[in-house]
Amino acid sequence: MRPAIQDKIDNLNKPKGALGRLESLAMQVCLIQHTLTPSLAHPCHLLLGGDHGIEREGVSVSPREVTWQQMINFTRGGGGVNMLCRQHGFKLRIVDVGVDYNLSEVPGVIDRKIARGTCNFLHEPAMTEAQFDQSIEVGAALVDECIAEGCQVLCIGEMGIANTSPSSIWMSLFCDIPLDECIGAGAGLNLPGIRHKRDILSQSVQRFNHFCSPCREEAEKDLLAIRYFGGFEMTTAIGAMLRAAEQHLVVLIDGFIMTACALAACRLFPSAKDYMVFGHCGDESGHRRMLDSLHAEPLLYLGMRLGEGTGALCAFPILDTAVRMVNEMNNFDNAHITKYF
Amino acid sequence: MRPAIQDKIDNLNKPKGALGRLESLAMQVCLIQHTLTPSLAHPCHLLLGGDHGIEREGVSVSPREVTWQQMINFTRGGGGVNMLCRQHGFKLRIVDVGVDYNLSEVPGVIDRKIARGTCNFLHEPAMTEAQFDQSIEVGAALVDECIAEGCQVLCIGEMGIANTSPSSIWMSLFCDIPLDECIGAGAGLNLPGIRHKRDILSQSVQRFNHFCSPCREEAEKDLLAIRYFGGFEMTTAIGAMLRAAEQHLVVLIDGFIMTACALAACRLFPSAKDYMVFGHCGDESGHRRMLDSLHAEPLLYLGMRLGEGTGALCAFPILDTAVRMVNEMNNFDNAHITKYF
Repeated sequence: MRPAIQDKIDNLNKPKGALGRLESLAMQVCLIQHTLTPSLAHPCHLLLGGDHGIEREGVSVSPREVTWQQMINFTRGGGGVNMLCRQHGFKLRIVDVGVDYNLSEVPGVIDRKIARGTCNFLHEPAMTEAQFDQSIEVGAALVDECIAEGCQVLCIGEMGIANTSPSSIWMSLFCDIPLDECIGAGAGLNLPGIRHKRDILSQSVQRFNHFCSPCREEAEKDLLAIRYFGGFEMTTAIGAMLRAAEQHLVVLIDGFIMTACALAACRLFPSAKDYMVFGHCGDESGHRRMLDSLHAEPLLYLGMRLGEGTGALCAFPILDTAVRMVNEMNNFDNAHITKYF
Repeated sequence: MRPAIQDKIDNLNKPKGALGRLESLAMQVCLIQHTLTPSLAHPCHLLLGGDHGIEREGVSVSPREVTWQQMINFTRGGGGVNMLCRQHGFKLRIVDVGVDYNLSEVPGVIDRKIARGTCNFLHEPAMTEAQFDQSIEVGAALVDECIAEGCQVLCIGEMGIANTSPSSIWMSLFCDIPLDECIGAGAGLNLPGIRHKRDILSQSVQRFNHFCSPCREEAEKDLLAIRYFGGFEMTTAIGAMLRAAEQHLVVLIDGFIMTACALAACRLFPSAKDYMVFGHCGDESGHRRMLDSLHAEPLLYLGMRLGEGTGALCAFPILDTAVRMVNEMNNFDNAHITKYF
């Protein structure tokens, strides 16, 4: 496939390589879809919400109740994710996979709740093996529902107060970077707050290391780290990313938390990365290093740190342009232009 | 206006500053339009075409005829600029201001031709004073036509083989950077080609310095440099940028050549910069330094070098998101969210 795609791109009506990143992006989408005429039909956005036991340790500037309040707000259309889904034509699915509040009666929230928040990983694994398996299956099933509607491009966002904490730990473990260098301000911690977060997370990792010392295989330890620290919205996202790759969808990856999930997904199945388009490099310290360790080049640098998938959604029009380029631009023959290279 | 806008942005349903660059962009548009409810109605794209006398010296990898061939191609909808205008809802005006070919009978090309290409600035000024004045007026009149249709956001692109040459010279003169550091590969010159381009441009600047030695004022020298080296598409763009600023339009600035025009426009009227949104930082060496000297932070880094305004058009959805953010996002009161900062 690759030479045929390259040939098509090189013969479009422009100097070779002149559309830069759009050209490599077009190549990626063509390879994912095994086609010379790619498309991005029925874009879907999964907004996954879940609470975190570790929030009880005061590692976040925002209180836990903001998770459910925002989930309800999203159903009313007033969040950042709503405006971006409207702007770019994404069908938004708001899914409760672990919010610590009863949302089952709220119209517009899809109920896939696994539990009311994870356990506190300072003291115990965030979820059981059964809960982990369930979340992976929920993620896969959500993707299957999107595919049934004709979806070819998936974006995933999260709402989960305190979820930069497990993300920082995954980054440290999977990129082999000292934990301190993986921890930032989250949604706006001050310096003493960051220091406290470092203490709590460092203790948690120490206990994890003790807990998993009998693990023999690296792969087994990875899997354990994912369920030991992960939020339900995060492990569900991993399940969704893996299923999307299996089904040849293009997957738009958002900021720090979703990149940590992408990292975990690629740790389990490295080829999942071929299906990922990294939308945005945000402000959370360490996001850049995590992207580097994935050899991922994000499309945007807009200093956003809202989550919800907003950074990735902002990048969608660029992906769309890349696909239009392959389908809509003339080539030199039909444009009657002197080929000058 | 500024405190009221900041207050509105800070009370949107997100941590303060969490939408990063979108927030500063929203501030800029609100200030340009003197409003708390900005809009980007009737986007227009001016694609200005012109040929350059300096092309006769072999400073470009592409032959002169590509200018008119591409102008015709744009009328057929197959160029990069066409697909982006369709994607983002821009009305495209293809304007001949100085192409060295008779396009007057070509449907879809607006005829504002000043001459069939500029003179060769290796030997003489590219245009006369009268031609320069005419091009500024043509640019202003084109903007007035857009405004008459309700246009609030303008993008400008160019088609003009060899127009990186005058751009490099303007950069050198206006940013006070040695000429050699301002010259790159254009649309794909090899190393001997770049060396030749340097020789020709360096001789041209020497003769210009001799030509304008009687100039007493800095401003007079600036104005002379603009007409001595500029292409008609470039001076028309300057006229358009200045008129757009005067009429409180948002102006999207494209790559190397349009940034050189923005630099020239701001040299004449520094406050024009307040109306400019810099869309894309491309690959042409020196573009970044030119942006730095304007204290301009581009929205995208996609390694594009096609011109036509394509880089700026790619950035439009981000500008649109910033405006939607101000108008569509809930604030903390109507979203019923615990304000957590």
